[in-house]
Amino acid sequence: MGLIRSWVESANAPDHPFPLNNLPCGVFSRHEAKPRCGVAIGDCVLDVAALEERGLLVLPGGPLMDVPVWNKVMQAGPQVWAAVRARLLEMLGEGSGERAAVEPHLVPLAEVALQMPFLVSEYTDFYAGRHHATNVGTMFRGAENALPPNWLHIPIGYNGRASSVVVSGTAVRRPWGQVKGPDHALPAFQPSRRFDIELELGAVVGTPSVGPVTVAEADAMIFGYVLLNDWSARDIQAWEYQPLGPFQAKATATTISPWIVTRAALEPFRCSTPPREVPLLPHLQEPGPMLYDIALEVGLTPEGGRETVIARTNYREMYYSAAQQLAHHTTSGCPMRTGDLLGSGTISGPAKDARGSLLELSWGGKEPIAIDGGTRSFIEDGDTLVLRGTCLGDGYAIGFGACSGQVLPALPDPYRRP
Amino acid sequence: MGLIRSWVESANAPDHPFPLNNLPCGVFSRHEAKPRCGVAIGDCVLDVAALEERGLLVLPGGPLMDVPVWNKVMQAGPQVWAAVRARLLEMLGEGSGERAAVEPHLVPLAEVALQMPFLVSEYTDFYAGRHHATNVGTMFRGAENALPPNWLHIPIGYNGRASSVVVSGTAVRRPWGQVKGPDHALPAFQPSRRFDIELELGAVVGTPSVGPVTVAEADAMIFGYVLLNDWSARDIQAWEYQPLGPFQAKATATTISPWIVTRAALEPFRCSTPPREVPLLPHLQEPGPMLYDIALEVGLTPEGGRETVIARTNYREMYYSAAQQLAHHTTSGCPMRTGDLLGSGTISGPAKDARGSLLELSWGGKEPIAIDGGTRSFIEDGDTLVLRGTCLGDGYAIGFGACSGQVLPALPDPYRRP
Repeated sequence: MGLIRSWVESANAPDHPFPLNNLPCGVFSRHEAKPRCGVAIGDCVLDVAALEERGLLVLPGGPLMDVPVWNKVMQAGPQVWAAVRARLLEMLGEGSGERAAVEPHLVPLAEVALQMPFLVSEYTDFYAGRHHATNVGTMFRGAENALPPNWLHIPIGYNGRASSVVVSGTAVRRPWGQVKGPDHALPAFQPSRRFDIELELGAVVGTPSVGPVTVAEADAMIFGYVLLNDWSARDIQAWEYQPLGPFQAKATATTISPWIVTRAALEPFRCSTPPREVPLLPHLQEPGPMLYDIALEVGLTPEGGRETVIARTNYREMYYSAAQQLAHHTTSGCPMRTGDLLGSGTISGPAKDARGSLLELSWGGKEPIAIDGGTRSFIEDGDTLVLRGTCLGDGYAIGFGACSGQVLPALPDPYRRP
Repeated sequence: MGLIRSWVESANAPDHPFPLNNLPCGVFSRHEAKPRCGVAIGDCVLDVAALEERGLLVLPGGPLMDVPVWNKVMQAGPQVWAAVRARLLEMLGEGSGERAAVEPHLVPLAEVALQMPFLVSEYTDFYAGRHHATNVGTMFRGAENALPPNWLHIPIGYNGRASSVVVSGTAVRRPWGQVKGPDHALPAFQPSRRFDIELELGAVVGTPSVGPVTVAEADAMIFGYVLLNDWSARDIQAWEYQPLGPFQAKATATTISPWIVTRAALEPFRCSTPPREVPLLPHLQEPGPMLYDIALEVGLTPEGGRETVIARTNYREMYYSAAQQLAHHTTSGCPMRTGDLLGSGTISGPAKDARGSLLELSWGGKEPIAIDGGTRSFIEDGDTLVLRGTCLGDGYAIGFGACSGQVLPALPDPYRRP
């Protein structure tokens, strides 16, 4: 399938992230107006909430866009998702007879602020990239014990903190936390000195479930995907994470891209997980390709400086797919809900410059990497980190929009009150 | 302070769990009517939503009880909580001139079904009981390495799954999961054989926070407390929990008692955490007593059999208070929200029969305990487990209502579809 042409001319450029093939779902506000559901098309956002209000978009069980989040649409399920997409393709397609009715509801992207596209119910983060797990395991436990014994049998996950998920563009404050250096007898409370990114893809659960679901059922529950940066304080993590896992190290913020790229838009880019080193138990076996070929990159821009792309990798590097992770998530009977967000785990490739965290890129700080005007082991104050993702189709591209955040200096000691 | 007498005569019995001193917050439904906010008083529930509708209870920013959960009241903050309590003491107190207006809104507890008292935003579970941590640590790592190095410095916590929190009386289905025995080369997918309880107290966050808060501020954010049973599949946990903590082992269900006992009701029972073995850093130091003297017990009733009380302990055994846990939870800047639920961690005392889990009571299954008509190492199908909590005041008691759940047999293999 090639480019689907639109009368929105900017959407037809072969490298534009938002062609008619994409139609990603976001929430925008213009001037001081209230946030509204919108869909990106070329250089514009289409005010789909207005289309629904005016009866141009009629959905079963509607109105579904009378709230400034996509959750009602997400909960409505795959048939409604298909109906929205079909209707938008019809209205926005080249030669559509509805152009006159629709065009007044296009707003230039340059004039809007993008908000959280959905209300996050709960957030789960996984550890499902083979290269990342091997790199981190080698650093912490030595090459021979790099992969934990369970790693090849289950997509290891832990629950994160939904309240800390923010949209791209939100500044991130360097956290304080309790840390203990190997040479110190006692811990100290101080700003994190090893603040880091994790390049991930986030799967957004649309339809809820009760009881265990298969991988195929899990795949059908996923509404779409976002880019996700799971900011991580490595020094806090090292002290706190045994025996019950990361907690405050991961709770400062998790940034997502403003656009949910739907599963339908990603369909042409499906690819398989790599061959299994050991066979998976039946509940984790995939009925078909469940990963996607999404080229990913990380840019780092020091304050006042120029961006350096510090990593390039691809989502197809993952060992477990989001559908497998979601299926695993339900094995215990855990109910899943509309708006649940599943982080893929850090996406690192086999090459040195394909690593999705500074921890790996600088090998624990021992091999600082070169950036414009200096070097980096971990994030410095004022640095802006941006994730980008692109699917390259036949004459078109699918983009997620930037997933970006600037790190601000830590505040003064929050417990030393005047 | 002694018993506060009410014209609701049943509330004046010295051992009744719901005297006027208590006024715990719940949600009830009668016959097929919609659930409503209510407060327990003696053998009745007072329909406080009706009082608000009729103008007998006027709250700033109201209506706050027009939804069948306490979240709006919780979010309104300590002044509103105090106003609700003061007004109820006035209306229900012995000799109140408003008895005629209020009495029609009393409903016998025997006629109602109790629902979730609040909407759980996120659920965090801690590991803050010294005896429990020592017992479990000794079993898994030996007596010399029982306490992890960080244990005396931070209240170790991990994020749980809010979607799995259910109210007392909800049946709990034995989960399936991936497990691996020490003598097996490969894991298997099977029903849990080591399904267990964890006797805990849950702190319910009322007012939200952004940025780090002190222990005193954290205490003021807590609306009240519930009993909490964190059902745990020990065999699933043993295989999955390294390196990132418990996940599916804890996601089947967490049961809470139907009544939130407010902080005001617990005030006379405050007591201090034990002396610190090593000094805490300033952000975790307590400005005063933050635990409560709450006698706790666990009952186990086999299907068709009689109950055996298998454990008796007290919340004052904890090493860290909920206020310390909540303060720690915010150190990274993690936003806390109305409806967040913090599990204390398993509450075990020093004695053998004061242990808050079967794992500890049966010492990993090696020393089965006696119950009516048999023995138990872990939960068997049909067993009903109940937690109870009581504060013994001067001529009165404060109760939480039972926190109960029956364990049903596992379903057939969920992945073997016909």
